[in-house]
Order: sequence, then structure tokens, then C-alpha cells
Amino acid sequence: MNKRITVIKGDGIGPEIIDEAIKVLDAAADKYHHHFTYNYIDAGGCAIDKFGTSLPDASLAACLDCDSVLLGAVGGPKWDQVDPAIRPEKALLKIRKEMGLFSNLRPAKVFDVLAAASPLKPEIVAQGIDLLIVRELIGGVYFGERETKEINNELKATDIMSYSEHEIERVGRVAFETARKRRHHVTSVDKANVLDTSRLWRKVMHRLAEEYPDVTYTDMLVDNTAMQLVKNPSQFDVVVTENMFGDILSDEASMITGSIGLIPSSSLGVGSRGMYEPIHGSAPDIAGMNIANPIGTILSAAMMLKYSFEMEAESQAIEDAVNAVLNEGYRTADIYTEGKIKLTCSAMGDKIVSKL
Amino acid sequence: MNKRITVIKGDGIGPEIIDEAIKVLDAAADKYHHHFTYNYIDAGGCAIDKFGTSLPDASLAACLDCDSVLLGAVGGPKWDQVDPAIRPEKALLKIRKEMGLFSNLRPAKVFDVLAAASPLKPEIVAQGIDLLIVRELIGGVYFGERETKEINNELKATDIMSYSEHEIERVGRVAFETARKRRHHVTSVDKANVLDTSRLWRKVMHRLAEEYPDVTYTDMLVDNTAMQLVKNPSQFDVVVTENMFGDILSDEASMITGSIGLIPSSSLGVGSRGMYEPIHGSAPDIAGMNIANPIGTILSAAMMLKYSFEMEAESQAIEDAVNAVLNEGYRTADIYTEGKIKLTCSAMGDKIVSKL
Ligand SMILES: CC(C)[C@H](C(=O)O)[C@@H](O)C(=O)O
Ligand SMILES: CC(C)[C@H](C(=O)O)[C@@H](O)C(=O)O
Repeated sequence: MNKRITVIKGDGIGPEIIDEAIKVLDAAADKYHHHFTYNYIDAGGCAIDKFGTSLPDASLAACLDCDSVLLGAVGGPKWDQVDPAIRPEKALLKIRKEMGLFSNLRPAKVFDVLAAASPLKPEIVAQGIDLLIVRELIGGVYFGERETKEINNELKATDIMSYSEHEIERVGRVAFETARKRRHHVTSVDKANVLDTSRLWRKVMHRLAEEYPDVTYTDMLVDNTAMQLVKNPSQFDVVVTENMFGDILSDEASMITGSIGLIPSSSLGVGSRGMYEPIHGSAPDIAGMNIANPIGTILSAAMMLKYSFEMEAESQAIEDAVNAVLNEGYRTADIYTEGKIKLTCSAMGDKIVSKL
Repeated sequence: MNKRITVIKGDGIGPEIIDEAIKVLDAAADKYHHHFTYNYIDAGGCAIDKFGTSLPDASLAACLDCDSVLLGAVGGPKWDQVDPAIRPEKALLKIRKEMGLFSNLRPAKVFDVLAAASPLKPEIVAQGIDLLIVRELIGGVYFGERETKEINNELKATDIMSYSEHEIERVGRVAFETARKRRHHVTSVDKANVLDTSRLWRKVMHRLAEEYPDVTYTDMLVDNTAMQLVKNPSQFDVVVTENMFGDILSDEASMITGSIGLIPSSSLGVGSRGMYEPIHGSAPDIAGMNIANPIGTILSAAMMLKYSFEMEAESQAIEDAVNAVLNEGYRTADIYTEGKIKLTCSAMGDKIVSKL
């Protein structure tokens, strides 16, 4: 198959990790006789530096005209002081919105060989950590109106959080469908004892739960979920929640695995075109040093093959290659422990390619 | 001194744990020649059952006319289906608002003898976990307007999140002042890359930080904070944040200590009158069984003596008594481990009194 991939290297370690993912994609294309063409575009901090905006029109157009988007990472302290209207993160939010990517899947799984990296006690890790956060990505307080204005001689800032039934239902459906391919359990997270948006969220989820009688359904308050993720993460299979809660909980969930550099994510809407990116940030402190971990990006590319291009075998082959390399003891600096073999970012990419 | 304390036993285990706290308060009063009078009022689920409202006017009036309020716990699944307008949690929110309790202090500290109860690895716990969350308690999305209405044949729910400069400044000041009595470090948590309220929050905190040059100041995004609390909690001293983020992060922080049954909290406004309560919930599953842990409530009473009544020695005496009992190996069921001595809720109260 021919596939046109729009690629955003972005900032910090973005370019290095993307280079390795492209190596792996090309190797997979070779092996399975596909042809991938890459359209490299500027977005994020680097685009601010070049064009004065984090998302030039041409970049957005390239995201809307392709088979899928692969992203490294955007942002960094360098752009902390720029006008909020053009910040690097704005690019990300605008792409999500314009591409209609309402469901963001963030798996948090402990790789057996890396179990010791988890900050949790071995007894807790041994119970198994393999959950998937389904985060609503283009609604809620991220996309409501906001304003800051002077009232009574002082500034007052306001952000509006809204959800409509159809916005909740479509992401809820993704959660239930995904649960059917996993352990058949959905935990829906809200703050229904306080928020109207949460009460509507819960109502819609209950309606969906009736349509999926084969899936066990649990409501959980967001504060309690923040506790349960640390106390007993094995209780979770699929966790579905709104945008802001998903931002916080998915980061917490990724950290309990202890290997945040390995976690991929997908963002999808209607249809097969999506955006794929590692969940870690742009790590400007180690940018350009060739020591970053490219696995999160490589596994994001694997997710793209599976979810956007229906290339199951190809995707699995990449996952297997990553597992093989980890099992043989190869590690980048972030997951290195004594007795293992330390690889640079590019050497890790090469090693994974060699297993394909 | 004479002090008038309004007491809300509330629901679930509320009554049992309050009884023990009152025992301890009376013992402290005896020893130090004070006189405490208790005004027991109904609030929460039990008030819904009796009066059809979670906070009868007389109960609110009693909170506003006293030297401080001591609360057990309110709520439970029994009232999950009642009209949001009269839910048990509404009582709590209304008391906070009407009493003007804008700063909620939630310490998360690992007691040495209970270090093994933390879900985190011993190496992480050994670095020391002793942080204090200062949560803004009467602003933000908890108290903005909300509505659910039909638009285009579907329901749309909206919650409004607002902060004014003075609301941020007053709670920020509490954080900086408290940090001066601790390790002189404030971490302010926000989502300034997305929210206007967070950008205003950060601006006001930066202004305050200049007034407190002896306090080290750090900005941290809420998603990153959710990770750092698990990865490296020893980096935190005082953490200050808005209402909703504080709800989530303080629960996460309490869980990493592994002994949530022991954590007290204070809620204060202008002046010395506050509300004190354990941070755990009403635990209806073990209500009436005399196995709950009363220590969170007892330490809340100790906080009340210190912060509202300026009884430093008395407060310290209660803390010392609790430490002595723990050091001697006495445990309630929730923190019991082999080789220790298991006590009921009331026996734990008695044991603490015996050390006073
Ligand atoms: C960069 C930021 C706007 C973004 C978000 O909050 O969604 C990031 O934290 C994420 O989770 O992808
Ligand atoms: C009961 C609920 C409304 C309350 C809150 O969210 O503030 C509770 O979770 C708390 O943290 O005290």
C-alpha cells in the first residue's frame, strides 16, 4: 500500500526520536512491500522561531491532507514567555481540533523486563498493570471560551467547561468497543458530585453501558481514581474520562509504569486518519545529545500502522522487535540499569530495525 | 479557656471516629484546664433522611456561631440518587463557602513506623515524604455557575471556572507563610499552557514570590505534578493549587503515604474559626463495626487546637500521644500488619487518651 504520512519533528528531542521511527517505518515498508511518503512540516516552537506562529496554515493543511500524522514532541521553556495565542501547545490543540481527533488512547502497561523501574512496590506491580486511558480530546475546558478582564479594579479570569451528549457518547463508544477487545471492563471517571458536565457524562455512560451488557461498568470519582491508580492499578482495564481529567490521570498512569519513554498514544476521530505521538515531552535538557529513548515514538508508529492503516501484522512485527531488543537487555539511558547494555537513541533505532 | 465547638458526626463511620476525637479533646481539656462545649448538629446524608436537606438552616447557623467546627465524614452511596441540589456533599460545600474557608491544608507525611504501608518503593519512601497541599477551597469550578440545557435536540452541560486576583493572592499568602514555618519551598500547580485562570494564578503567585525571597518558588503543570508525586515526592514541601486540582492531587498525595486513615485537614479563612476533618471518606462498608481508624479525626482535633485556639502545647501533646501509641505497635485494622497489636476504633481512642 501507499501511505502519505505527515511528520512533525517538533522541538527538543523531537527530531532525533522521529528519525528513528522513520527508520523503523521504512524497514517495515521494505519487509511488507508498502510505500510510505513523508511530508515533513513545521509546528511548535520551531515554527514560532521561523514563522512567528506555532502552526503555519500550510502545516495545518498538510495534517488535513494525508493518511496520518506522526508527531515527535512540541514545546519547551524557550517559548514559555510567548503570547498564549501562539504558544507551541496551541499547535497541538489546533491540530487535534481541526482533525476532529476526539479520542485519545494512552496505554499504561508495565513491560515485564522493566517491572523494576516502576516507582510502585513490587507486590503491587506483580498484580499486573495493563490499562488504557481513553481521554476525550477536543471538548471540555480545553476548548471552551475563556477571558481575563478587569472587574472591580482587579483581574478576573474565566474558563468555560462544556460537554454535549454526542461528544460524550462518541468517546464513550470508543471506550466500550476497545474494552471488548481487552478485558471487558470500563471505568468511567468524573466528578459527578460537583459538576454538571460530569453528571451529564455519567448519564450518557450509563446509557451506553446498557448497550454493552458484556462489558463490566464502574463509575469512579476523579479524586478517588487518582488514589486507586497508585494503590491498586490492576483493577483497571479501560478508563474513560473527559479532557482535563484525562490529561492528569494519563500522566499519573504512565508514571506508575516507570517507563514513560516507551508509551505511545493515538488520537482518532471519525475515519481512519489519526495523529500518533509518544506521551513524553520534548525534554529540551537532553535534546541533540542522541541519548533520548525513541521507543515511545516507534511504538506510536506501530499504533499508526494498526489503527490507521489496518496493517496488523506490520504493527505486531514492530512491537515484537521492540520486545526482543528489550529482552536482550538493550536500554537507552532513561531505562538503563546495571548489567544491561546502554544504547544511544540512534543505536536503539538500528537495533530495533535489525530485529524486523 | 472556654471554647465552643460545633460537631458534625455525619454519615458512615463519622459518629464512631468523632466519639474518639471528643474523648481525646476532653482529656486534653482536663489536663490543661480548658473547657470545651460541643454543639452536635446534623449535616450530610443523615440530615437528608431527617429533614430532606443536607444542611438545615440551624446547622449552618451553628457553624457560623462557634469557635470552630469538627467534622467526621459525610455522604455515601445511599444518597447517590438524590437531587444534586440537596446531596450530602452540598452541605460540605455550603459550609466551606458560608464560613469563608478559602484555604484547605492537607498534610501528606509518612509516619516512620508506617513507612512500609506506602504503595511506593522503599527507596522512594526513604528519601522522605512530608509535604503539605494548600488547596484553594471556595473558588474555581466548584463554585462557578453551571447549567444543563437542551440545544439542538441534545443536552449540553456547562460549568464555569473563575478566579479573581484577590482569591488567588489570599491562598497564595497562606502557602508562602506556611512554607516559612517548614522547609521554605512553594510549588505552585496550574495548567498555564491551557487555562486563563491558570495564567492569572501564575501571575499572582510570581508577584507573591517576590515578596518572599527567602522561599524557593517553583511552577509546575498539573499533569507533571501528578507524575512527580509518584516519582519523587521528596521534592515537595508546600504545594499550592486551585480547588479542583487540589482535590485530585491531595488525594493522590495522601495515598502515597499509605496511611490515609491518619491524615487530618484544616480549612481556614480570615480569622481563627475553621473546620477540621480527616481527609478520608465515610466508609459506609465498615460503619458501625467499631473498626474504623479514628486517628485522622483525632489529629484534626489537634490541628484545631493549634490553628484555631492557639493551644500549641495541647496540640503537640495529642500528636505525641498518637506517635507513642503507634510506636508501641498499636494499630487499627486498616494499618494492621503481622506482629502488631490490633485495636478497635474505641480502644484506639482510649489508648491515645491513656498517653495524654
Ligand atoms: C501540551 C498540552 C497542551 C497537552 C495537553 O494538556 O493536552 C499535553 O499535556 C498532553 O497531554 O498532550
Ligand atoms: C465531597 C466532595 C465534594 C469533596 C470535594 O471535592 O471537595 C471531597 O472530595 C473533598 O476533597 O473534601
